[in-house]
Amino acid sequence: MREDAKTPARHAERMARKQEIMRERIARAQKEQGVLLVLTGPGKGKSSSGFGMLARSLGHGMKVGVVQFIKGSFSTGEEAFFRHLPGVDYHVMGEGYTWDTQDRERDVAMAQAAWHVARRMLNDPAYHFVLLDELNIALRYDYLDLEAVLDDLMQRPVMQHVVVTGRYAPQALIDIADTVTEMKVVKHAFADQGIKAQKGIEL
Amino acid sequence: MREDAKTPARHAERMARKQEIMRERIARAQKEQGVLLVLTGPGKGKSSSGFGMLARSLGHGMKVGVVQFIKGSFSTGEEAFFRHLPGVDYHVMGEGYTWDTQDRERDVAMAQAAWHVARRMLNDPAYHFVLLDELNIALRYDYLDLEAVLDDLMQRPVMQHVVVTGRYAPQALIDIADTVTEMKVVKHAFADQGIKAQKGIEL
Repeated sequence: MREDAKTPARHAERMARKQEIMRERIARAQKEQGVLLVLTGPGKGKSSSGFGMLARSLGHGMKVGVVQFIKGSFSTGEEAFFRHLPGVDYHVMGEGYTWDTQDRERDVAMAQAAWHVARRMLNDPAYHFVLLDELNIALRYDYLDLEAVLDDLMQRPVMQHVVVTGRYAPQALIDIADTVTEMKVVKHAFADQGIKAQKGIEL
Repeated sequence: MREDAKTPARHAERMARKQEIMRERIARAQKEQGVLLVLTGPGKGKSSSGFGMLARSLGHGMKVGVVQFIKGSFSTGEEAFFRHLPGVDYHVMGEGYTWDTQDRERDVAMAQAAWHVARRMLNDPAYHFVLLDELNIALRYDYLDLEAVLDDLMQRPVMQHVVVTGRYAPQALIDIADTVTEMKVVKHAFADQGIKAQKGIEL
């Protein structure tokens, strides 16, 4: 049913749609509204930054949601720390992707199950902050329908903050985001210096 | 007593010294050692990333220290969230810098008091992770002796991780760091779109 996301017509339509939704959001919220933040690029610190913002939100007494789209791309330290705290709804969905075995159908099904959880949060104004960790990777592999994801993000509650992390953020996501930071590698301990990855930092 | 930090001779000496210390560290630790990570650049997410790593360290049951060199550059959400957790030693030192009034002597005294606290952590192997938030700014304004700071960082316990945040990381700090990420602005909500800063994210 959906047109190709990459056609100029579809892009223009999305931009027009975005403008309309933004106008609605601004009309509803006047001075305050949730921010869609994308953290991308090859440098280290994308997920950590998302988790730091999550801590900040908790510090302000907000209810938060986390969906990790890629399990094992990351330390389990955050999970150990955050998942049982009050106010935190934490889901690790990406366990067992078959990057190597190439059972694509299974991977798509898992990513879609993860999006199902994310979508529930994006439909619920009780969540003031939602972290979609490594969503960009699931989009990169076309495990999810990009247009459907963008629509759900744009239609979320007006005060809800969303942080999306992962390399290779698609341009269409950057287009609808409020703030985008690219993490650039200046120097990398393990590439440059052969130091073993550590729990605690694991950079 | 100290030579100019910027002379090539001092640089070569520092590099030779670093090599020696690195060799000692490697001899002591073989496979594992603490990492010195610098998060710099104009993009958002530097401090958040440091706090995310702090959460990860706590998730692994580590004792952690935080010294915030610039109060008010940042949300108090992290402080509210982290400062009373067990295992967290949290100091906000930079309150009341006189950027505008230019009482430089007072600013230097405050930065040095902050470094005194940081130094105590850097001398104590009980701290597995130390976050020196916005230290780069204090260095940028020459509120601290750069060489003394570098020496203290290099002589810290072999397993201790340190994260230094802030724009304008000095090159000499980058030289001794294991991992350096530069946060680049791709898009900024408040610069580009006029959205009011929010508690919770405040980007």
